[in-house]
Amino acid sequence: MKIEHIGIAVKSLGISDELFAKLLGKEPYKHESVEREGVTTSFFQVGDSKIELLEASKEESPIAKFIEKKGEGIHHIAFGVENIYAEIERLKENGFIFISEEPKQGADNKLVVFLHPKSTNGVLVELCQEI
Amino acid sequence: MKIEHIGIAVKSLGISDELFAKLLGKEPYKHESVEREGVTTSFFQVGDSKIELLEASKEESPIAKFIEKKGEGIHHIAFGVENIYAEIERLKENGFIFISEEPKQGADNKLVVFLHPKSTNGVLVELCQEI
Repeated sequence: MKIEHIGIAVKSLGISDELFAKLLGKEPYKHESVEREGVTTSFFQVGDSKIELLEASKEESPIAKFIEKKGEGIHHIAFGVENIYAEIERLKENGFIFISEEPKQGADNKLVVFLHPKSTNGVLVELCQEI
Repeated sequence: MKIEHIGIAVKSLGISDELFAKLLGKEPYKHESVEREGVTTSFFQVGDSKIELLEASKEESPIAKFIEKKGEGIHHIAFGVENIYAEIERLKENGFIFISEEPKQGADNKLVVFLHPKSTNGVLVELCQEI
């Protein structure tokens, strides 16, 4: 398990791309839209991990709701795992609750699944596995 | 620059140590109090990065205020840098604002400094350098 990326909810990908490029001293290596989730993303490589900026691409996007409620800021931590199905089983046996137990295709060529923040100290945790 | 750790504000280090040990499949490798900051911390190694749990050790602790305002959850991202003084200069030239520009000794044998979330998209960013 490693910290694959940290997801940050932003209002404007254009403005925040510029800001994080200055902060991190490098440009994003890609942009990608995930239609089903209603988000447009950009990725910055930082050491062995990534920063993922997330902008809502539609009103009912979870990112739009998050920003409305809490403002811009850190949205989730994603842990990279070798076998997402085995990890889901292991965590369920340990009492963790998933938003959905069925992995879906997310950004950056990954299978992803989210744990419910109620079972993880208020932290939205994503598990992801390279496809 | 790398993601050195992610700081998570928790109400009870005892309860959250147990929760994150189950989540990450390993025990914390150390506990440490930082009297000046009013926090007690525990650290979990995750790949090349760490998860730092932070519990308030006094009422006026920034962690107590954070939890009162926002509840438990992700508190900050810390980027590990080679030369914290050079990074502070570089970021100031790029318009970033620091909570204090003078690095202080933090947990885990580090010199640390925090950027103001107003200049970083609502994200509390720590820079840290191994002493």
